[in-house]
This record gives sequence, structure tokens and C-alpha cells, in this order.
Amino acid sequence: MSIWKKDSHIYTELLEVEKHIGKALKSRQSTLTKGVEGLLEAGGKRVRPALVLLSGQFGEYDRKKLMPLAAGVEILHMATLVHDDIIDDADIRRGAPTIQAKWGKDMAVFTGDFLLTRAFSLITQNVELESMHKLSNVLKAICEGEIDQYEARFDLDTSVGDYLKRIARKTALLFTASCRLGAEQSHCTPRNAFNLRHYGQNLGMAFQIKDDLLDFSDDQEVLGKPSLADFANGIFTLPIIYLARKEKYRSKLVDIINSGEFLPEELLNIKNWVHESGAIEYTKALAKRYMDRALNNLSALPPIPARDSMEHLAMELRERDY
Amino acid sequence: MSIWKKDSHIYTELLEVEKHIGKALKSRQSTLTKGVEGLLEAGGKRVRPALVLLSGQFGEYDRKKLMPLAAGVEILHMATLVHDDIIDDADIRRGAPTIQAKWGKDMAVFTGDFLLTRAFSLITQNVELESMHKLSNVLKAICEGEIDQYEARFDLDTSVGDYLKRIARKTALLFTASCRLGAEQSHCTPRNAFNLRHYGQNLGMAFQIKDDLLDFSDDQEVLGKPSLADFANGIFTLPIIYLARKEKYRSKLVDIINSGEFLPEELLNIKNWVHESGAIEYTKALAKRYMDRALNNLSALPPIPARDSMEHLAMELRERDY
Repeated sequence: MSIWKKDSHIYTELLEVEKHIGKALKSRQSTLTKGVEGLLEAGGKRVRPALVLLSGQFGEYDRKKLMPLAAGVEILHMATLVHDDIIDDADIRRGAPTIQAKWGKDMAVFTGDFLLTRAFSLITQNVELESMHKLSNVLKAICEGEIDQYEARFDLDTSVGDYLKRIARKTALLFTASCRLGAEQSHCTPRNAFNLRHYGQNLGMAFQIKDDLLDFSDDQEVLGKPSLADFANGIFTLPIIYLARKEKYRSKLVDIINSGEFLPEELLNIKNWVHESGAIEYTKALAKRYMDRALNNLSALPPIPARDSMEHLAMELRERDY
Repeated sequence: MSIWKKDSHIYTELLEVEKHIGKALKSRQSTLTKGVEGLLEAGGKRVRPALVLLSGQFGEYDRKKLMPLAAGVEILHMATLVHDDIIDDADIRRGAPTIQAKWGKDMAVFTGDFLLTRAFSLITQNVELESMHKLSNVLKAICEGEIDQYEARFDLDTSVGDYLKRIARKTALLFTASCRLGAEQSHCTPRNAFNLRHYGQNLGMAFQIKDDLLDFSDDQEVLGKPSLADFANGIFTLPIIYLARKEKYRSKLVDIINSGEFLPEELLNIKNWVHESGAIEYTKALAKRYMDRALNNLSALPPIPARDSMEHLAMELRERDY
């Protein structure tokens, strides 16, 4: 939660969210508890709960109602990560061993299910019917998006449009939903609700584009997981999509993919091509467009401290290096 | 749904539930749709939705509210089956290839998640807060139970008590919850609600004990999946627990388990031991005790057609051979 340390108010609120999360995830099942504790210790930026709480300040701030919602969206996010790691065969996340690496895919399936059910429990007890309906649709879209992504693996014909649709479902939707939940609880004006949702949407897009860019970073420490992991799993993000549009690089990529294995020197080559080809700049430019839209949405909101925090968040994510 | 064919009223109602299920599981994602269609075609007894609808007839029958709940519990059940099959590495269920066998564990993870989210969506939109809270606890217990079961694999010291606790979580709880949902919607008397819930609980226990017994059946067709699959996966049920308490058989079981592989002739031996040792009779006797309790609960309910259907269901499950 280091990105929030300069913002003492939201930082304090997020510590409260942590307590709600911990309480919701208590279980008599000891292995489950260990797995969950490991997840909690590995931390995370807690962006989604922050968005819930911050969005909730544009009308009447109902802290009591917002806390479980904030905890719920973070647990939902954790559930998708745990299940994602099964699919990616991932061993490390946030610098710590994944549930599936430590206890096996089997444990990870039911741990993720446990997290999902706890998230639903927290959220359904605290929202209006209509909000629950919309959130269900978000979850449906996330599942569909994950399957889309899975099916599109190793497809060098993935277009920029395909990619953007994919990350919209995978990431941006939940950012939007987090902002919506907060806005709705606060009963703010429709105009504010609109700008909050769109801030969430645009921020989510920028966030995921930059996050995917991290996969090409040299710094495994920064990343918390090995680099080019997405590529190795056949998840082609913007830099690769950009490369694949240039014949010079495409044929080399085809060879590597067809070889069936990804040797360290090949992955290093890909990293170099991504750097020398302009792919990084292209990707950063697209991230900036979404970020600028997010900041635009913010400028249409009343100048309250929560807006400053949201701007601060956008800045932090923008500077996030990669 | 053949067990319901003689009961035209509930059979018709269950056809309506099928429509609700189909509608809830529509998706633009084509592979997901194929997977889900396969699940629906493979069928199933639809016991849980039947319990919702039948329990709902002991007060005011609110069909409109009960339909989505009935569909929801069946989809929840389907979700647990899909995820179970990942863990069991199962290839066949209800005579059809499992999602994980056909498309891989990865697809099965997210298909199960999709089912979970649709189930929650259907249920939360149609129950009181308190019901939702109880159902969440049921789901929590199911996940914890699955992990317990996973951890207790290949443990010949599993006691009868351990086993009963495990199936209570894994199966009986959802039967109880199905009855409770129906009873609550109908606003029936507390006494009737009590007997309905306990009927569900006892029926669920009897059902699972008999279902586990099927694993020792000769008839793969009856089973819809290969026999002794539980044993091969290290899930030790009553017949094995019974065998393991007799030194003569225990040492042979230890040898087989330690060998690390289960040859067909060894599995055949185990089947024979289960038959010759009295394990089958022991197991059937325990199933009968729960079944008698269930019938007792029924006798305390008013003699309406729904009660006849519930009695009919108990009879069908009792005769289920094994």
C-alpha cells in the first residue's frame, strides 16, 4: 500500500479495509487460512477498495456501508488472481509463491472459490438490488474475458482492438464498478457518478496497459514475478502486437513460437526488439491517452480532498516504471 | 430427470427450472456456451431444485420467486461439480466428458467461476438478506470441506466421524439449504420449516453415503464414471474406512497405496474385499438410518402432495442400486 502513504486519510481508511478483509476471510480450515494469510501478507496496492471509498465521498460518505464493499471488491480481485495463477501456471506473484505453486492447482481452485463466496457475501449484504445485478454482469464479463484471453493465446493476429476489449473486461470493468459502488452509496449527482465511473474506466485501461508493459521490464524485483511471463504463456500484449505488425520482427516471433520452447536468450531478444522497435513508446503513448482522459474526468468533479487523492493515484500509476 | 417422471407436477415444474437455468447461463463466449450446453445435456437428477420447489409448497407457494432460487441452487451445484472434476482429474461425469477433460483445467476453472457468479446473481436477487447470509455460510463450508477432503486423501486413519462431517459439508448442507430456501419463501410454520430442513439434511447424508457406495459398483453405466475412482483419488469412503479397521485388509490396502499405482487387478481385489467383508452391508445400514430419519421428518409434515413427492424421492434414492 505504499502508493497511499503520502495520503494519510485514505491510508488510514485502507487499514480499516484490511481489517474487514481479514475478518471476512477467517476460516477453521488451517491450510485455507495459511494460503489466505500468505495472500494478505503479499500485499497489493488496494486500488479497487480505494476507488470505492474515494468515490463514496462525492455525496454522503457512508463509511459503515462502504467498508464491506471495499473489502468485497478487493477479495473479488484476489479470487481472480488466484484462479489466474492456476491458468498461467504462475509460481510467483507480488514476490511471493502463488497458492497454486505452494499447494497445487487443486487447492488454488477451492481457495479462489472461497474468496469468491466471501466477496459475494460482503457485497450482497450491502448493496441495492440493481447494483448487485450490475456487479454480477461485471463478474460474468470477467469470466468470459478470461476465457477469450485463454483461447487467443499464441495468436499473433491479435489486434489492438482485441487487446483493448480484453483488458476492458479483465481490468477496467472492475475499476469502473468500484467507482460506481462508491458513487451509488453516496447518492451523488448523476453527473458526478458519470465522471467517477469514467475516471475508473480510463484509469483501469491505463493501469493495465502499463502493467502489461512491466512484463518487459528488466527488473524482476519491480515486477514481483519473472519477466516475459505473459509472452511465455501466449498472452500477447501491446508491445508484441506492435512488433508482430512489422514483418522484420513478425517472422522472428513466428519462429520462436513455433519452436515450442522459449529459451532465455530468445526472450532476451524479444525484450531487445520491443525496446529498439518503438513498441515501448507506442504503448506508453496509448497509456497516456487513457490517463489524460481519466484526468479530464477528474477535472469535471468538485475539488474535494477525495479528488486530490484520485489525482494522486493517477499520477502514481503514470510514473510507475517500467 | 427420470426419477421425477412418475410425478407429473414436479416434473413439469422442473422443466420450467431448466428454462431458467438455460437463460441464466447464456453467454456470448462460444466455448463457454458449448461447455455449459454439454453440462446441461448430461442432465442430472435436479434433486436440489426439486427440494426448493417442494419445500415452497408448505406455506404460500410463490412460484415466481422460487424458480430463480431453484435454478440458482442447481447452477451452484454444477459449479462445484466442474471444480471438483479439476481436482479429481475426472474425465467422465454423467457419462459425458467433463469440461476439464475436454478443454483443460484452465477452461474448467473459469467455467466454474462463471457458474458460481450466475448462481449468486439468481439467488441474491430473490432472497432476504438473512437467507443470503446463511447461503454464503453454506458455500464457505463447502469450500472448506473440499479442502479438508483434499488434505485427507490417502489417509487410512480417516474415521467414520471424519467422513460423516465431510459429507455433511459437501452434500447435506446444500440439501438443507435448498429446503430452507423453499420453506422461507413460503413463510410456512417454524415447525414445518424445521422438519423440512432436517428432511433435507438426513436425505442428503443418505444420498451421499449411497452415492459413494456406487463407486464400488460393477456397472460403469449406472455410475456414469469409472468405478473405484474415489479410491484411486485417495478419497476414502465408508466401505474403505470399514475395511481399514480390519487388520487383515488394512495391511493389503497399505501395500496397494504405498505401491503408488493402482492396477486394475488390485482395484478388483479391493472391490471383492469390500463385498466379502461386510463393508457393503455396514454402509447400507448407515444410509438406512439417515433415510429413516428423513422419512420421520416427513411424517411430521402435513400430508399434502408435495410431501408425497418428497417421500417418493426418498424411496427412489433408497432403491438406487448400487
